Amino acid sequence: MGGTSAAPASRCTLATIAREANVSVPTVSKVLNGHSDVAPTTRAQVERLLTLHGYQRPRVPRRTSRRGDLLDLVINELDSAWALEILTGVEEVAEEVNMSLVVSAVHNRASLTRRWLDSLISRGSQGAILVLSELAEEQRAELSRRTLPFVVVDGVSLPPPEVPSVGATNFGGGYAATEHLLALGHRRIGVIGGPEQMLCTRARVAGYRAALEAAGLPACRELVRYGDFHHSGGLAAAQRLLALPEPPTAIFAGSDQQATGVYEAVRQIGRSIPHDVSVVGFDDLNFAQWTAPPLTTVRQPLREMGGTAARTLLRIIGGQRLDTHRIELATTLVRRESTAPPPA
Amino acid sequence: MGGTSAAPASRCTLATIAREANVSVPTVSKVLNGHSDVAPTTRAQVERLLTLHGYQRPRVPRRTSRRGDLLDLVINELDSAWALEILTGVEEVAEEVNMSLVVSAVHNRASLTRRWLDSLISRGSQGAILVLSELAEEQRAELSRRTLPFVVVDGVSLPPPEVPSVGATNFGGGYAATEHLLALGHRRIGVIGGPEQMLCTRARVAGYRAALEAAGLPACRELVRYGDFHHSGGLAAAQRLLALPEPPTAIFAGSDQQATGVYEAVRQIGRSIPHDVSVVGFDDLNFAQWTAPPLTTVRQPLREMGGTAARTLLRIIGGQRLDTHRIELATTLVRRESTAPPPA
Repeated sequence: MGGTSAAPASRCTLATIAREANVSVPTVSKVLNGHSDVAPTTRAQVERLLTLHGYQRPRVPRRTSRRGDLLDLVINELDSAWALEILTGVEEVAEEVNMSLVVSAVHNRASLTRRWLDSLISRGSQGAILVLSELAEEQRAELSRRTLPFVVVDGVSLPPPEVPSVGATNFGGGYAATEHLLALGHRRIGVIGGPEQMLCTRARVAGYRAALEAAGLPACRELVRYGDFHHSGGLAAAQRLLALPEPPTAIFAGSDQQATGVYEAVRQIGRSIPHDVSVVGFDDLNFAQWTAPPLTTVRQPLREMGGTAARTLLRIIGGQRLDTHRIELATTLVRRESTAPPPA
Repeated sequence: MGGTSAAPASRCTLATIAREANVSVPTVSKVLNGHSDVAPTTRAQVERLLTLHGYQRPRVPRRTSRRGDLLDLVINELDSAWALEILTGVEEVAEEVNMSLVVSAVHNRASLTRRWLDSLISRGSQGAILVLSELAEEQRAELSRRTLPFVVVDGVSLPPPEVPSVGATNFGGGYAATEHLLALGHRRIGVIGGPEQMLCTRARVAGYRAALEAAGLPACRELVRYGDFHHSGGLAAAQRLLALPEPPTAIFAGSDQQATGVYEAVRQIGRSIPHDVSVVGFDDLNFAQWTAPPLTTVRQPLREMGGTAARTLLRIIGGQRLDTHRIELATTLVRRESTAPPPA
């Protein structure tokens, strides 16, 4: 609206880069494709020019080569039901389009190194879905420069607007969990976030605070704790909450695994759920329906998030325009048996 | 000892096959590599000759081509903590040797089709780990004929001795679970297997029967039930067991997920674990320590099974001789709080 349309950028080819770098076209191609037999100084110069000119690799139409029908899923850790749900969603979409899915766990190492990207590109990956606790600006730039399409799922921080990403309505989920407990009559509600610096933690805790505020209640600092999204973190934080002079009558546990830790903390002091303490989880992993009592939780559509990320990636690979670079799928409160009115 | 050594088989080359089939060597190569542009009758004839001569594809030394650094994990369903543990073990080993892992779920379809194998070979897979409920003789033959190395994990039936496979000591695990309940004083012990036709089910139930027999107790038919390895199967089978005129005082649930179903069935009739009914699971998935009460279970080293399968596959790919084609990793009883002496 009222904006001037930008003049189309002049098309930069490998020949342009080669001429300016004073190297051959095959050398530029080698750098672009991550081959190792290029002198470091030459590589650096070519990379600088590729970035300078904003070189765009021509899209290879899909299915011209069966070798290239690979998608990559790069995930921090595989060892949780949470990771599995995302993986399942991605795999289903890859299978629909007859592509093969390469799965890598980076185990919290900064594995998105140049060398790793080289191998990814040289084995013909069409693009990557990144489920990482950390994606450094440098790594993002490297991915963009290589023009390897990628989509971020549930990033530790909100990526810049130009990076395609998929998440869940964490703020809305935290709000709904807290509103549910307020509606049951709870006034003293504890919350256990995951790691404090994570985007999803901050959004869930912000939703908790907003719901309290809407009900005209203060958000006491002593009732806000942080964990690690695992059982042990939930246990430790709940032990501290329950040891307060005026303990909460309800705890929003921030994740289902942390909720199992809250269950243990309540059991340890001989109290019962939901009679003495109400508990709400987050995620709705499959075991949430099997805990005793079955866990009231905020369902995060992890499988759909994986599927949406994969479909978004395929759109980028296919050269289609994205309607939006940020998609948040809706969370929903699932009421089971771990919540009840506070003890009289 | 005393055997005569076999004469070495004459080496069969692509040229031999081409000559006999009256086609060119490239045509034979195309059939072998799964290309589609070969007439069906020619393909059939060449395949027949390849089988007849027991053609062995020369092993390509690893790492000559980065494109080829792919391993495949083919799994029936991804949607359980059980699958995740195996996947994690395989991924760790793949990562150690800088290979990429392609993960496919076959969703109970008979997806190991010729076409699927074609694509696997043409994108340069070095070998496959198969975690399937069913591997038909025909599929096995197809894999062997293509000389694509493969290893089977926890197959539905014991594969022929020449097929490399990895499993767990299911018989020993069933025996240990039952022995533990007997030692606590239980005399009327129910068992819930998974699907009856599965090898692991049969082995676990056989271990249960052997332990009862060793204690001089009969294995009553009414106490042996079968489920589906999921929560719902455990629930339904436990409901029937607990409704018996003389219900069991302990149930060996056959899997951790089935154990959660047994927990629910016990809760439904207002009884408590372990006071009224003792429960033992199988697998030791991560949630087993978080159930209320924490579940006594037989630990199956799923991650190690995945890792062992991957290392075995790498040995085959590397042309090394296997010490054994069948490896069973040990199960161990993990005592938690779901088992106690029977009510007086």
